[in-house]
Amino acid sequence: MTGRLVIVGLGPGDVAMRTPQVDAALAGATDLIGYGPYLQRVEAAPDAVRHASDNREELDRARHALTLAAAGRRVAVVSSGDAGVFAMASAVFEAIEHGEPQWRLLDIAVLPGISAMLAVAARVGAPLGHDFCVLSLSDNLKPWPLVLRRLDAAASAGFSMALYNPVSTARPWQLGEALALLRDRLPGTVPVVFATAVSRPEERIVLTDLANAIPAQADMRTLILVGTETSRLIPRGEGRAAFLYAPRGAV
Amino acid sequence: MTGRLVIVGLGPGDVAMRTPQVDAALAGATDLIGYGPYLQRVEAAPDAVRHASDNREELDRARHALTLAAAGRRVAVVSSGDAGVFAMASAVFEAIEHGEPQWRLLDIAVLPGISAMLAVAARVGAPLGHDFCVLSLSDNLKPWPLVLRRLDAAASAGFSMALYNPVSTARPWQLGEALALLRDRLPGTVPVVFATAVSRPEERIVLTDLANAIPAQADMRTLILVGTETSRLIPRGEGRAAFLYAPRGAV
Repeated sequence: MTGRLVIVGLGPGDVAMRTPQVDAALAGATDLIGYGPYLQRVEAAPDAVRHASDNREELDRARHALTLAAAGRRVAVVSSGDAGVFAMASAVFEAIEHGEPQWRLLDIAVLPGISAMLAVAARVGAPLGHDFCVLSLSDNLKPWPLVLRRLDAAASAGFSMALYNPVSTARPWQLGEALALLRDRLPGTVPVVFATAVSRPEERIVLTDLANAIPAQADMRTLILVGTETSRLIPRGEGRAAFLYAPRGAV
Repeated sequence: MTGRLVIVGLGPGDVAMRTPQVDAALAGATDLIGYGPYLQRVEAAPDAVRHASDNREELDRARHALTLAAAGRRVAVVSSGDAGVFAMASAVFEAIEHGEPQWRLLDIAVLPGISAMLAVAARVGAPLGHDFCVLSLSDNLKPWPLVLRRLDAAASAGFSMALYNPVSTARPWQLGEALALLRDRLPGTVPVVFATAVSRPEERIVLTDLANAIPAQADMRTLILVGTETSRLIPRGEGRAAFLYAPRGAV
């Protein structure tokens, strides 16, 4: 077992937000595995092999990475953001648990990255400065009523929220239903941020509120932040975007 | 208004997890403001002024930083982890909202960092790989019954949890009460991680379960992760620590 598997998070896009630890792991890899557009953003050794895949077959990709590492390769599995937040790390551990016994003996490390929620929060102020929940709106792997139940619990207990995977072509109506539930539980003035491609050239940030939030403001790359009744907006004038933050004592 | 204020997250400790963006901001600062032990970990320009403070008077520190920036200095406010997660960013925006009107016109940026929860999760596997809540157990700025209500909501809806600020000398009994509530709601086999000083030489990680979790395993630097009934442990044998992860479809 001389192979090594690292599961790395690239951060939101800007290389200035990628950690040196991740850069070093990428430079030392013989094989890089991940969604094609992410792999394109990565610098690696000249002779490194890039195994691009589409964004769906996560378990296949994980098994492929483990097979290569078990054969002695130094493999980097690449996610955007943080690999442990709705990304490849869980898929790799699922593959290990249900796969070859010797995979458990491999040298395996997860290297954290700046997650989308942290990058988006920093971009608009400090909206996650107090208690918050992080949810995926995807019902590919869990029943939709459970998503609604968790949204309900988070809103009712006064958590801010970071919502991942808000829409896809296969999930066109779920976001509208999620926003409708939140409008039932919270005042329409609660701030909502739609953030797409943060730190990348095509970055788009929309700061609105629950009453005016519409699903068309999101695509599959969008992260949504939902505040609380105690969220604060600081207008700045002169064409500057307002700051949004959660007071430290947000009750 | 030529001054600049950056609010930066240093990450958990290891400089290999600090982003280049943050390093550049620190190198360009004329003044660094933060808790003394964090400032000691930072490289800065030779003539930069370090304003060390204790870890309590956050609003005073924020006002001091804004006053310096308004006077034309390039100020870096330093937090460990991510500045937007139970750290200095919210305090700075509170100071702006209630402070001098011209502070709103300053060049202000928050630069994200690897938060403790992401570093700890990566260290043990992928325990935050599905829906999770992030809570502070401190009742300095919110009533304790609200903390319990949020713990109850999170546990009842099947969220994993990252618990910040578990104990301090002024808050000795709260963690015991929080764990008792979780034991009421969840099976004793739910995994619990006590992680202290992750990525630093004195790192200490304890992987246990709710039935065996005791407050003495935490101090004021500890982050606690609490799993769910669907959390998975992968034993590895041969003296290797088990992996802990949340399946992608965790219901």
